[in-house]
Amino acid sequence: MSDYRLHCFAQSGNAYKVALYLNCAGLDWEPVFVDFMAGGVTRDPAWRTANNAMGEAPVLEHAGKSYSQSGAILTMLAEKTGKFAPNGADEAYEALRWILFDNHKFTSFLATYRFQRAFLPNAPDPAVLAFLKGRFEPALNVVEGHLANRAFILGDWPTIADFSFAGYAFFPEAETGFDFDDVAPNFAAWKRRMAALAGWQDPYDLMPGEKIAPVR
Amino acid sequence: MSDYRLHCFAQSGNAYKVALYLNCAGLDWEPVFVDFMAGGVTRDPAWRTANNAMGEAPVLEHAGKSYSQSGAILTMLAEKTGKFAPNGADEAYEALRWILFDNHKFTSFLATYRFQRAFLPNAPDPAVLAFLKGRFEPALNVVEGHLANRAFILGDWPTIADFSFAGYAFFPEAETGFDFDDVAPNFAAWKRRMAALAGWQDPYDLMPGEKIAPVR
Repeated sequence: MSDYRLHCFAQSGNAYKVALYLNCAGLDWEPVFVDFMAGGVTRDPAWRTANNAMGEAPVLEHAGKSYSQSGAILTMLAEKTGKFAPNGADEAYEALRWILFDNHKFTSFLATYRFQRAFLPNAPDPAVLAFLKGRFEPALNVVEGHLANRAFILGDWPTIADFSFAGYAFFPEAETGFDFDDVAPNFAAWKRRMAALAGWQDPYDLMPGEKIAPVR
Repeated sequence: MSDYRLHCFAQSGNAYKVALYLNCAGLDWEPVFVDFMAGGVTRDPAWRTANNAMGEAPVLEHAGKSYSQSGAILTMLAEKTGKFAPNGADEAYEALRWILFDNHKFTSFLATYRFQRAFLPNAPDPAVLAFLKGRFEPALNVVEGHLANRAFILGDWPTIADFSFAGYAFFPEAETGFDFDDVAPNFAAWKRRMAALAGWQDPYDLMPGEKIAPVR
């Protein structure tokens, strides 16, 4: 059995954050398919009890323990392995600050916007879609400005903070509705730097699950 | 000058997380009023440059440094002071996991729902309001279930994770639209335990800024 077993599925950018980290860090890991898109497995009481009360993917199994919340998993893995770890207390603070911003304002709205526009079975309310897009764009602008004079979120080298922002960045425009080359060139250049890392793979190549065509 | 200076305003639950922590921890702190509700101060380039590129309150000044993101501030303060600190690595993981969940799913939706329904100058779109409420409720249910057999988020004693969930919990029902005694009795009981801590104060007593009547 691999050192790390990641319960994940291809459409989950939050799972991708951890899958991409494990792969780029060269750790011994395997994906375990969670059939979330087929509906409800993460809401199943047995999954919740065994894995996490929050009912979310990803869940990482390692050394007999289960870990949920991608930002906490990334923080723990960096501390344990030293890979893509912040250097010292000030950088650790900065990584956590950006991971929280990602969870609160960036991934949260981009993920929800993408799901509503591409995968929600019934057509989403246009006002809700516009609201979510209007919430994500200022967060994107913050990151775009931050990357104007930095190669990666903390500076010259990639850290766990970059893996957090990578969550939904590599899904196709047909899903996210965003052409980052067009609206956020610094972020798009950062994407190319991330994609150049050894071990980088597209979410649909890295994690199990059928690619699903956007429903609209 | 106080050891800690917290840039905050009474309506900000994210600022309240830190203000309440500082007060309950008995630290030497003072609030510095950020007139966010009057519009735009946190979007001012000077504030952003001096304090934080994310343009958010709160910002904590301590020993010549500025810190933003309430979850990162709480984590740093617990490490520095030992007050309301998780005990050991497993609890530190658990605290971070819940702080991330709070930022991603709990505070985020409750804060936005409250602002839209109580303070947005123009009437919000009913579909957006319903969406935000519908997002917050499952997060509340997760916390409600978790508190069924625990006094506080990590167990018998309050930690920084509790201060995170306290952010918007104490604003009046006229603002949040939630009567927690009615819909989440475990959470309401947890609120009473938090309110019994030495140093607890209502957000409108603890932080500067006029109380503003909900606009609708």
